[in-house]
Amino acid sequence: MPKINRQRLLDDLHKLRSFGAEGNGVVRTALSDIDLESRNWLRDKYAQAGLNSRIDSVGNVIGLSTNSGPAVLIGSHSDTQPEGGWLDGAYGVICALEVARAFNEDETASNYAIDVASWMDEEGTFLGCLGAMSYCETLSDEELNGATDADGRVLTEVLEQTGLSANASEVLQPDRQIAYLEVHIEQGPVLDTHKEKIGVVTGIVGIRECKITFTGEQNHAGTAPMSLRKDAAASLIAVASAINSRFPETASDVSVWTIGSISLGTQSPSIVPGHAEMMLQIRDPDNGVMDALQELAATIVAEQDGQKGVQVEIQIDETMTPAKMDETLQECIAASAETHASGSWRRMPSGAVHDAQVLAERLPSG
Amino acid sequence: MPKINRQRLLDDLHKLRSFGAEGNGVVRTALSDIDLESRNWLRDKYAQAGLNSRIDSVGNVIGLSTNSGPAVLIGSHSDTQPEGGWLDGAYGVICALEVARAFNEDETASNYAIDVASWMDEEGTFLGCLGAMSYCETLSDEELNGATDADGRVLTEVLEQTGLSANASEVLQPDRQIAYLEVHIEQGPVLDTHKEKIGVVTGIVGIRECKITFTGEQNHAGTAPMSLRKDAAASLIAVASAINSRFPETASDVSVWTIGSISLGTQSPSIVPGHAEMMLQIRDPDNGVMDALQELAATIVAEQDGQKGVQVEIQIDETMTPAKMDETLQECIAASAETHASGSWRRMPSGAVHDAQVLAERLPSG
Repeated sequence: MPKINRQRLLDDLHKLRSFGAEGNGVVRTALSDIDLESRNWLRDKYAQAGLNSRIDSVGNVIGLSTNSGPAVLIGSHSDTQPEGGWLDGAYGVICALEVARAFNEDETASNYAIDVASWMDEEGTFLGCLGAMSYCETLSDEELNGATDADGRVLTEVLEQTGLSANASEVLQPDRQIAYLEVHIEQGPVLDTHKEKIGVVTGIVGIRECKITFTGEQNHAGTAPMSLRKDAAASLIAVASAINSRFPETASDVSVWTIGSISLGTQSPSIVPGHAEMMLQIRDPDNGVMDALQELAATIVAEQDGQKGVQVEIQIDETMTPAKMDETLQECIAASAETHASGSWRRMPSGAVHDAQVLAERLPSG
Repeated sequence: MPKINRQRLLDDLHKLRSFGAEGNGVVRTALSDIDLESRNWLRDKYAQAGLNSRIDSVGNVIGLSTNSGPAVLIGSHSDTQPEGGWLDGAYGVICALEVARAFNEDETASNYAIDVASWMDEEGTFLGCLGAMSYCETLSDEELNGATDADGRVLTEVLEQTGLSANASEVLQPDRQIAYLEVHIEQGPVLDTHKEKIGVVTGIVGIRECKITFTGEQNHAGTAPMSLRKDAAASLIAVASAINSRFPETASDVSVWTIGSISLGTQSPSIVPGHAEMMLQIRDPDNGVMDALQELAATIVAEQDGQKGVQVEIQIDETMTPAKMDETLQECIAASAETHASGSWRRMPSGAVHDAQVLAERLPSG
């Protein structure tokens, strides 16, 4: 049975953190000098673990087992948000390295093929899940060529300047790789609140974003009587309130919805706003539930549209499709959780985007 | 019976407009060069109408009848908003001039004393209703000395630079002046909607402003389940919705309330806001009604405070006290309206601030 070396795992985690450590966080955005430096270090670590190690044409660090397979692919991302948490992505990357090392060191297990990866730009500095999409061959030329960062730097130019585009592409080997695993810290309060250790992910939620706009008539707050107003803010409040009161009927017990953005055309206590806008975001691991919630939002908007002279419109974008995690892999992870953290784990959806959402389109994932 | 000369009234209205005319509007902010130029013109017009005419130490243009009185004081303001409507204030100023002229020209009426005024800075470029407050001696030294414009220019320094502070002060003559009248265009849609010509003002509304703040906890919209959220925006929506649904029970038929400003601490579809703020403005001509509405707002806030972990606080400012118009004057104006616009007038409150709000503290006003 392969043995995890805890100290080595922690040491490498701290070492990876040292690339870009700032205060409590880490600044190691995709394709920055420090990101590339950390990826060179990681490539060498993969090599020391006996893996066939390389950095591909978009900056993915790939370590392939020298065994023929079937192989399990394990990974996550080592790039960060502009200021990221030190475990976000990094924990999964170092876990994968340690598993590969542990299998390599154990003669009884050394014939199993463990492939490892650190994907490029999960966080979307240029293009969210760039590396995973490139590896899975689900990245279109359009997306690749159109991607820029917040400063307008063009992704393809940066790949050229860094020399990465001269590297060979690496792609999924579906005949050899049979599953994908990704370890990630929870980015929410559920496990902490329940004092639990492990979440067995049932699926990664999809995201629908609804932009709702309200068009009435701007007026003087003193001289426009209530009956003659076409108050865009009042209409927005009515729609937002209906969403918050009626969504629970239709939502699943893991649905979340968020009104995270509200803007009025004017911001003055003495002006009745003529224009207003809000963003409603819906997340659920089940497309059917999201369809039902989206339909309810559209119904609420239709009911409010035209009331008291205010036009209401909704525009819905599907920004992420949900991904179901493989049931056999869930069983394996659950059995292992019960062994190592008995009674202190739960099945739960992941509410945040992960590389596994991309990989799950091609491989059974957990 | 004194006769109004319509053409002369219109000519002078257009002449006054020419000082600062821009597009459909007028730019003649208080104490600007063009404002002072127009006030010199007005002082000369007052003199031509047989009035004892002067500009006082804050820039009020005052025309006093040479008759002993009792006198009726008639006026409005000739300064404008940064871009004002061409009739706002100006109509009342030129009407007063024309009334004084008509009385002066009619031998049967020439013994009546008509005093006229154009007040300085009703619009609050430096200090709202500066001129009316100065004339009524309700302006404190603190207010006068503390007033600046949006560029930080100090009012008292500007009065000095323009030479106005060297002029004599003019103040109300309560033993002589027995009433104040002000004609003003309606700044709302009521008369226009009902195709009516005259509004007999019953009172000028007071204003209460409530700043309501919401403090919860910022969170990731994907990973924070609904049950663990402390969503400041959701709490704001609940309070705003309760205000809009419960205020009609307590409001009078002329009350207005406006949620004209909403701001969230974050503006992102993927973030549960931890902080939010809204402004609620209440206007009514009756202090008792405003007290009741203010109390209802405080009750709604108290009911919401602490729900789902969000603290809610309300801070209430009385920015204007309401002013009742004199009932005898209302009767006179109503009778005259019935003569000249039979069936085409109504009694109504004024929803906007006017100089008459200040004058009404000292004189019966209409």
